[in-house]
Order: sequence, then structure tokens, then C-alpha cells
Amino acid sequence: MKILILGGDGYLGWPTAMFFSKLGHKVTIIDNFLKKKIENEENVRPLFTQVPLGERVDLWNKNINNPIKFIYGDLLNHRFLYDLLKDIEPEAIIHYAEQPSAPYSMRGRESCFLTQYNNVMGNLNLLFAIKKHCPSTHLIKLGTMGEYGTPNIDIEEGWININHNGRTDRVLYPKKPGSFYHLSKVHDSNNIEFASRVWGIRCTDLNQGCVYGVDTNETVLDEKFATSFHYDHVFGTVINRFICQAVVEEDLTIYGNGSQKRGYLNIKDTLNCINIAVNNPAKIGEFRVFNQYTETLSINDISNIVIDAADLLGIKTKSKNIKNPRIEQEDHYYNPKNTSLIKLGLDPIKLEKELVAKMIDKVSSYKDRIIKTTINPNILWKK
Amino acid sequence: MKILILGGDGYLGWPTAMFFSKLGHKVTIIDNFLKKKIENEENVRPLFTQVPLGERVDLWNKNINNPIKFIYGDLLNHRFLYDLLKDIEPEAIIHYAEQPSAPYSMRGRESCFLTQYNNVMGNLNLLFAIKKHCPSTHLIKLGTMGEYGTPNIDIEEGWININHNGRTDRVLYPKKPGSFYHLSKVHDSNNIEFASRVWGIRCTDLNQGCVYGVDTNETVLDEKFATSFHYDHVFGTVINRFICQAVVEEDLTIYGNGSQKRGYLNIKDTLNCINIAVNNPAKIGEFRVFNQYTETLSINDISNIVIDAADLLGIKTKSKNIKNPRIEQEDHYYNPKNTSLIKLGLDPIKLEKELVAKMIDKVSSYKDRIIKTTINPNILWKK
Repeated sequence: MKILILGGDGYLGWPTAMFFSKLGHKVTIIDNFLKKKIENEENVRPLFTQVPLGERVDLWNKNINNPIKFIYGDLLNHRFLYDLLKDIEPEAIIHYAEQPSAPYSMRGRESCFLTQYNNVMGNLNLLFAIKKHCPSTHLIKLGTMGEYGTPNIDIEEGWININHNGRTDRVLYPKKPGSFYHLSKVHDSNNIEFASRVWGIRCTDLNQGCVYGVDTNETVLDEKFATSFHYDHVFGTVINRFICQAVVEEDLTIYGNGSQKRGYLNIKDTLNCINIAVNNPAKIGEFRVFNQYTETLSINDISNIVIDAADLLGIKTKSKNIKNPRIEQEDHYYNPKNTSLIKLGLDPIKLEKELVAKMIDKVSSYKDRIIKTTINPNILWKK
Repeated sequence: MKILILGGDGYLGWPTAMFFSKLGHKVTIIDNFLKKKIENEENVRPLFTQVPLGERVDLWNKNINNPIKFIYGDLLNHRFLYDLLKDIEPEAIIHYAEQPSAPYSMRGRESCFLTQYNNVMGNLNLLFAIKKHCPSTHLIKLGTMGEYGTPNIDIEEGWININHNGRTDRVLYPKKPGSFYHLSKVHDSNNIEFASRVWGIRCTDLNQGCVYGVDTNETVLDEKFATSFHYDHVFGTVINRFICQAVVEEDLTIYGNGSQKRGYLNIKDTLNCINIAVNNPAKIGEFRVFNQYTETLSINDISNIVIDAADLLGIKTKSKNIKNPRIEQEDHYYNPKNTSLIKLGLDPIKLEKELVAKMIDKVSSYKDRIIKTTINPNILWKK
């Protein structure tokens, strides 16, 4: 299958490219290196030294007779995008090409503006390019579970049947996102649903939980295939951050009281979920939403698992509550559904201490590269 | 009260400026003349000859000892906006400054991009400017009833209490807008709700119906005070368009079968509603939504009223169904609520044939200025 991966240099984009290449698909990846730019702005860097994407692709292609093609490009350049889709005619487009940090979007006006401009307007260009040049392609769009917020009712998968004043309708699930980044994904979802309804575009919107994990089956093949693993306060997701704190024997910093629950999944399950979506495309005109996570955990659950895992390796660590830099509910109901991907065959990897211990062990080899000062948050939701 | 009106040159912005000036408020208006630019792009023009805004303001100020201040500016220029709010410290900001045409937003990629860029990003800049320079101001934001679409359940005012699987929550009303323009307003609402929740911004989001009407109590004071009345397929709302079709003795063109229902209000009631919002501000941190319309009518209802009104003046006209250029439900349930503004004292003006006859009579004096070729739609939702 011809697969186009937008944002092919990222934490998920690069492993996704190798994964589909190994499966025999014809993979093209695009990136504009916005995240690399923001790393410099924010003075943070990934744990593993990354060789430039072009070099990584060349190295990958040496060992496989199904090369990945890399093209530099930006979704905000619609001419580039139109020519690209016309040229490639992809059967599936996996769209990761968005500014991915909630804290960055909350730093101030400029970073907020950049986030919504890059994400929402880039996605709009993509919709028009699809309509014009490959209207039957399957758009697989990465959203986030954070779009829903923490409602006091069960979280369904994108749509909900409402009974109101004796009448019923199936409507888009009402969302209450927690940052301007999360809002950008809500705007995307709304724009895409309309494009599906009016133009017949087929889309799977994946509301993904927080991803954790160091390796995939492809990244381990060569140290130079390492993905962009972040543990810092800007790009680091909480499990990856706790693992690094354990390695440098710092307290695991819990934002607020730690009872916040979220959906989580292993990076290998991200690849499995995307693969399931690719193999089971949405119908023409269908705006299909999957909640892409494998388990819900509170921050306290996670810190306990990481502490126990560190203990297995003889590392003593503990947690510490710090003032929550975010404005969010801490004690709340949380019951999202994720049955769609399970029904389609996802066999979830769970966050167990043995698995976490393996991650800690791997990260320990890179202990000297961890910059402790980039871990604690300096971006507040309200100053 | 110090009132800032963004988009002060528009169909509603200019009458709003005169209205509040006459009431004794200190009014500043801003405009970037984007709509005038689009009029040229689309080759359409308002019915009444408009003198340039600066000249209109000077003329208004000659007759009143409470001058309106006009400043040219663009919300996309955040420096301008920051300086402006710092300087004026408005107690209320009435935000009309958005690209207002659904068909224009559907013409193609460029006009769609411009619509969402101008509206969403301009509104984001405004939120940051408010946060920084006048956090306790009351933002009165013009949205549209079209954000809701035509759900099969009653349309509440912005929020809805949901009972789902035995649990309840108050959530944002799920929306299903009908164009990229309407989507831009949905994105705005979502961004503002978040800013209210996190920063404590106070906002009244007015989901306004289709406005009709030629005059307000202020526009009639001098022919040069005329507002930007459109009857064309780009900016003209349906009632204004039908009135002009009656005047030039053309069939009233009904899109589709004409059973589409929407909320409507008289331009004078727009002013009354805004005044009610100004005098009853939202609380700190409150994202309050009012549905701003006075009656619901089908397109067929409206064409019948206009035909009867024309008949009162001896003008024979009839309606004609044409292929619907939009993709929308034609036969649908429609029961929106509008109790908030009524409870706060709105005394609705209704669309009666005598009132329509007066509008037809006034428009008849400008019959020669009606360009018939700009009335019928040439922008399709799907080509």
C-alpha cells in the first residue's frame, strides 16, 4: 500500500515509517522539522542522540529493498502539498504533523498562535489537497484523548447518542480540552468531520492517550534508529519523564495531588493501532473516531509502578507532589471507552513494573545525557 | 461606558457604533476593511452607496457632543491590539471583526484559509490582549445559530445538561456547523470557553440568527449613515435578498425545497440584544451563551411573507425553487431556545408583511442600484 506519513521525524512518526516499510508498504515521509526548532527555542533535547532524518533514512534503506522516501516539506505550503498528493496518490495518509506540546502552546501568545496556525491551517490545506488530488485516500489523523477533558459522564468514541427532552440524536461528543494545543486538535476534528460530511472524505480520527516507551521492534535494530524520546517538561510525557527521574535518582514530581486519570499506551501499541486503522479503512464520507489507549491510570498509579520498577533494579526513588502548573481537575470521574480498536484485534501491552524496569535499564545507559534542569515545569497555565 | 467595537464598518458594526454613541457611551471602532476587499474580489456591492467610514464618523460627530473614535487596525496585528486595549481599557468589547460569509468560505482553499485564519487567529490575539491589558472587560462575541446545525434534539443556549449511562454533566452543546465560516465561529467559541475557564475572562457568546433589515433609528438620520446592506449571494442574508428580488420583479429563488428552518431577527433587535448584553455582563470566568434570534421560520414561510408584502404595494412576485448550492438538511427538526435574552427584557420585532412592505418600499428607491447578476449563487458546497 502507498502510505504517506506526515511528521515522519517525530517520536511516533519515525517508528511508524520503519514499521510500515518493514511490512512491505511503500512509505513516503514528510517533515518540516518544526519540533527540532522548538527544541532549540525551549532549550530541551531528546534523550538519544538523533542523526538527521535524511541520514537515518539512508541507513534504513541500505538494509531493506523497500526504501522509505523522505521529502522535506510543510503543510502550510499548499502548493507543495497539492503536488505531493498528485504525485504519490497515497492510499493512506497518517497525519502526525502537528506541534505536539500542550505546555508549549500555553507559554504565551506567540507559541499559542504558532500551535493553532500550524496545526489547524496545515490540516485545512491537507483537506483541500485530498479533495483535489486523492479524494478516496484514507486520512488517519492523530488527535488526543485530551480533547475530551474529564467529563462527569462516560467518554464515548467521538460520537454520542443523546436523549434530550424526549428526542434523540447522534452528535459529536462534547469536548472540553485542557490547553490551546488540545484545542487545535478539537478544531481539526470539527473541520475534518465537516469535510467528510460534505465532500465524502474518509477519515479515522485517533484520540490517542499519552504514549510511553523507549523502543519499537525497529528502533532497536541500530542505535542510529533511535526515536525522539523526550523526558523534559515541554515534550516529555509523564511516564517517560518519571523513568528518567528514577534513573537520575530524583524524586518523581507529581503535578498536584496526582489523582488525575488519563489513558495511556505503549509506543508499540501506537504502531499496532495505526496498522489496524490502515487495514480497516473508514468508509467514504465516514468520520470515524477511535479512542486509542490501552489502560487508564492515575498519576499516583504511575509513580507507584515506576518506584516499584526502580526497586527491582536496586534504585531507590520516591515521589514528590509539586504545585500543579496546569489548570485541570485533579479528583474527577474518568471512564473512556476504547472498544473499537480492541474489537479490531488490538492486544494491549500493559504498564507493568517488569516492562518499566526494562525501560529504566535502557535509559540508564544514557544517564549522562539527562539534563535535570529541563524536567521541572516552568510554563504555568495561569501566571 | 467605554465600548470598543471591532468590525465597526460592517452591516451590524456601524449601526451598533451609532446606537451606543447616541446612548452616551464612549465608543471606539476598529476595522481592517477586509469585507470591502472581498466585495471587490467577489464583484458584489452593498445596495446603498457608502461614504468611507472616516467620513461617516466625522459627519456623525458633527451632530453629537459624544464623538465616535475610529482607528484603522487589524486583529492579526497583535501589537496594535495590545496597545489599543492598554490605551482604551474598554469595559465592553463587541467583536464583529470576522469574515462573515458562509459561501465565501466555501469558494475554495484560499478563501477558506483566509476565513479561518482571519477569524480564529484574530480572536486568539484578542484573548491574549484582553488577558494582558484588560482582564475584567466583558467580551461580547458574535457567533451564529449556524454553529449548531440542525440537530434532531432541542437546541439549548450553548450548554446542555446530558444524562448518559446514569450519570450527568453540563457540557458545551455539540455542534455540527454547515460551512468553514460557521466552523470558524465554533473554533472561536471553544477557544473562548477555555480562556474563560483558565484565565477568568468574562464572555457573552451570541449565537445570532440571520439578520434582516434596512434601517435602524440611527441610519435613517442621514442617507450617508446607511449601513452595508447586501442582497447578493455572497453576503446577502435570505430576507434581504428576497426583498431585492421582489423589487426588481424577479422570482424569489429558494435553495432546495425551502423547508429549511432557521432563526431570524431584525437588525434593530440585534442592537437591542447587544445593549442587553452590555448592561448585564457575564461574571468573571463565565462563558455565557445566548441564542440571539426572535423567531424561527422556514425559507418557504419567508418567501410567502415577502410575496404578500409585495402584493400590498401592488408588486406581483412569486417564488422559484433552484438546486440547493449548499449541502444541508432540508426537512429537519428545529427547536432552538432563546429565553435568556427574552428574560432580560428583549421585546421581539416580528417579521410581518407590513414591516416587510416598508422595507420593500425603501429598497424600491434604490432599485437601479440592484445588480441582478449578483443574486444567484455560483458557489457550490460540493462541485
